[in-house]
Amino acid sequence: MANSKYEYVKSFESNDKLMPSTWIVVRIDGHGFKKFSEDHGFDKPNDEQALYLMNACAVSMLQEFPDIVFAYGVSDEYSFIFRKETQFYQRRASKILSVTVSFFTSVYVMKWKEFFPQNKLKYPPTFDGRVVCYPSTAIVQDYLAWRQVDCHINNLNNTCYWMLVKSGKSKREAQDFLEGTQAQEKNELLFQQFNLNYNTLPAIFRKGSCVFRDKVEDIVKYTECGDPVKRSRLKVITYHCDIIEKTFWDKHQHILK
Amino acid sequence: MANSKYEYVKSFESNDKLMPSTWIVVRIDGHGFKKFSEDHGFDKPNDEQALYLMNACAVSMLQEFPDIVFAYGVSDEYSFIFRKETQFYQRRASKILSVTVSFFTSVYVMKWKEFFPQNKLKYPPTFDGRVVCYPSTAIVQDYLAWRQVDCHINNLNNTCYWMLVKSGKSKREAQDFLEGTQAQEKNELLFQQFNLNYNTLPAIFRKGSCVFRDKVEDIVKYTECGDPVKRSRLKVITYHCDIIEKTFWDKHQHILK
Amino acid sequence: MANSKYEYVKSFESNDKLMPSTWIVVRIDGHGFKKFSEDHGFDKPNDEQALYLMNACAVSMLQEFPDIVFAYGVSDEYSFIFRKETQFYQRRASKILSVTVSFFTSVYVMKWKEFFPQNKLKYPPTFDGRVVCYPSTAIVQDYLAWRQVDCHINNLNNTCYWMLVKSGKSKREAQDFLEGTQAQEKNELLFQQFNLNYNTLPAIFRKGSCVFRDKVEDIVKYTECGDPVKRSRLKVITYHCDIIEKTFWDKHQHILK
Amino acid sequence: MANSKYEYVKSFESNDKLMPSTWIVVRIDGHGFKKFSEDHGFDKPNDEQALYLMNACAVSMLQEFPDIVFAYGVSDEYSFIFRKETQFYQRRASKILSVTVSFFTSVYVMKWKEFFPQNKLKYPPTFDGRVVCYPSTAIVQDYLAWRQVDCHINNLNNTCYWMLVKSGKSKREAQDFLEGTQAQEKNELLFQQFNLNYNTLPAIFRKGSCVFRDKVEDIVKYTECGDPVKRSRLKVITYHCDIIEKTFWDKHQHILK
Repeated sequence: MANSKYEYVKSFESNDKLMPSTWIVVRIDGHGFKKFSEDHGFDKPNDEQALYLMNACAVSMLQEFPDIVFAYGVSDEYSFIFRKETQFYQRRASKILSVTVSFFTSVYVMKWKEFFPQNKLKYPPTFDGRVVCYPSTAIVQDYLAWRQVDCHINNLNNTCYWMLVKSGKSKREAQDFLEGTQAQEKNELLFQQFNLNYNTLPAIFRKGSCVFRDKVEDIVKYTECGDPVKRSRLKVITYHCDIIEKTFWDKHQHILK
Repeated sequence: MANSKYEYVKSFESNDKLMPSTWIVVRIDGHGFKKFSEDHGFDKPNDEQALYLMNACAVSMLQEFPDIVFAYGVSDEYSFIFRKETQFYQRRASKILSVTVSFFTSVYVMKWKEFFPQNKLKYPPTFDGRVVCYPSTAIVQDYLAWRQVDCHINNLNNTCYWMLVKSGKSKREAQDFLEGTQAQEKNELLFQQFNLNYNTLPAIFRKGSCVFRDKVEDIVKYTECGDPVKRSRLKVITYHCDIIEKTFWDKHQHILK
Repeated sequence: MANSKYEYVKSFESNDKLMPSTWIVVRIDGHGFKKFSEDHGFDKPNDEQALYLMNACAVSMLQEFPDIVFAYGVSDEYSFIFRKETQFYQRRASKILSVTVSFFTSVYVMKWKEFFPQNKLKYPPTFDGRVVCYPSTAIVQDYLAWRQVDCHINNLNNTCYWMLVKSGKSKREAQDFLEGTQAQEKNELLFQQFNLNYNTLPAIFRKGSCVFRDKVEDIVKYTECGDPVKRSRLKVITYHCDIIEKTFWDKHQHILK
Repeated sequence: MANSKYEYVKSFESNDKLMPSTWIVVRIDGHGFKKFSEDHGFDKPNDEQALYLMNACAVSMLQEFPDIVFAYGVSDEYSFIFRKETQFYQRRASKILSVTVSFFTSVYVMKWKEFFPQNKLKYPPTFDGRVVCYPSTAIVQDYLAWRQVDCHINNLNNTCYWMLVKSGKSKREAQDFLEGTQAQEKNELLFQQFNLNYNTLPAIFRKGSCVFRDKVEDIVKYTECGDPVKRSRLKVITYHCDIIEKTFWDKHQHILK
């Protein structure tokens, strides 16, 4: 019994190969996470455990998909950069998008209780995603700078907002108060009204998280004299550093080759 | 601090709206499920619990996404049909694909222990997906027929294969034995060698699973005379019926309108 | 000497096959024709010769490309409908678009002096084009109705505008005068101020032009008694009729099958 | 009379913007030119007048579209490179493709009698086209090298083929004779059998044609002493030079910036 009579329906599938020799970026976003974070009692403006869980998912991604060379995460979103020449799924957009979003989601649910042992999942956390290609390294770096600038703008604003709310203002009042204020005014608000130096907040809040493979040295044994014998290897690590300045990329040239 | 300097990177995102007034089909497939099913000890050729879990995910999908009007599943794949005029995510392919695959995955992991209480997940189950549009109802029905014919072909073959393997043949021998045989020969093999009438196998194996909203009647109360007062409502149900023949669609015209 | 070293550049070509089983519409538009029509002294608001030249190009298109089943033209634009199941260039959008626009342009230049014997082409007339797919016959009919409604709106307005300008108003005054007026007011303006019944204007101006194959009867010979012996055949003809009302499509069901 | 009822049909038009910051290449090809060249008595293997006409069209293209920075033509095909940051038609593929193919065709027909004064066009010459994007300068150079290598391979083969045919072989015999021969054998065939040194053939046949803007010096006047006063300007010129070797690009760095 051949299936030929109906197989014509396959011809409706469209070819969605991404342009060769371009950087592929998959950005994954929490879907309805404003509600999800409230329903699961996340700390505001930042829940450290929730960020650690996101980071753990990102680390799993780099371990699972060797062609991801860099990931940057902030709040409930994470961007994954595939190397320019990757042939992952022959660069088919739907395959790349669906498998990465599915894997990320799967890890998120499986690791949930590791990070929230007292906090049962009330319903399935869901992420959406998109795939974008960038033709040059400089533009990929601008993409990442774009996300980190966004992190800074949002985090400074959210920090002010929640300080105002926690100090007794209604949500509406807090929002009106911040409407149209500049970064410097927000910094001063925090310092003068709440005695908070924004720059002393944890870097994970201010800078987001960078996940990539970096050279680490392991002590494999000790010589008879007690000297350590080291071996270097690439390990997936998580940093909270500035990726807007070119300094980072100059120091880690192996990442984007 | 405006983000304008880097915002140009957004212009690289492509518009991926699907053609209006066409049926949108999302097909989700287990990614690497041959290995996954072995690593988790699934029964061969069919694991009833695994199918029930897939079906539970599909039911959740129809409950979560009201514009899905029909779903058909077999083995580790499931197709979801969105109504022709859906404006779900303004018909953006990436959003539709990523959110549905993510939700399906999330439910699969969350419900796993309900269906496999003794069987811990060894690693994250992952699905891939694709989106295809069909311009007419007749072609959507052909699409579903295509999947059900595939179900039949594969299940008949797999049933023979595993009967041979369980009876002592090596996997290679079983495969060689079946190479090039027709449906009728396979039916006869099962009947004569294994005393198995293929048509008596559970319909869920032979026909796959259809999930859709159907009218059900609930008894809401009883009159003083003891007669039931009924109210009909739409409920997401799972059937294992033939959808190749037009009879099904004639009887359920509301599904594809 | 093989070309393999550089042939990888072919992999950057994208697959642009159009969805099967949908109506393919190519719309060709005069590029910069406001200036072109002034530079070549076209009558305003309508130049009959220019329209006849456009129609001649459309007729050539139907003669050249058998899968075009209908064409509708107005002013410097023409829409061509390919039958739903056409395999013209395997439905590759770029090929279909470029060949049809190129052929149309070529005929336009070649036939120019037939329609404008005293009027030399000052520079190359150019057209742009686009390809759009429609999933159902009803929507294709709506597409054509859209173009014909546009024809009516524009022609009524242009007729008023040029009557005003020819009667001594400046272009700016004419435009301001018409700003915001409704169809009925425009009809009355023509009738009362210029004694012109809009409906008596040539149909080619008011309705545009439809080009399609219609059954015509030829007298092939005469019997001994002098009676004509006829044979019917399909011929590409040009009409100026209403295609908004369904009447037209009911009477010409063979066109969209 | 608003057109709103039917305007929904516009929503079926797809967005076809090309990726920003990539080189856009439009390649135009003679459609059915094997027959066209026979029907119009073109010399074989190369018709100089036909090539000059193609080149004249290409020069017009660069004069008409300032964002085209380079064109390369061979036989009945021509490739046009738009600068990487061009915003021509907001980078919409259909517009770019259709307008360039239409303009090229229009010039071809208009200039025909200038190059073939005794040779009337028998039917409309037609071209097809495609648009491809390349993310880096190196790949664009490889693209052009690909076309020039193709020019060499085809021209060497065609030269042999037509020498054989003109010397009395049938077309079939000539083809069989050349089947599987390498470049060196073909060169020797020409030299030994026909006393023809391939490298002495006109460069336009062997190298194709490059069209780009180059600095030229005009003498604008003479001083009293009779010395010329020169002014340099960019002029669209046509060369027949090697663009495979990097030398060309090193010497003309302004072209691809």
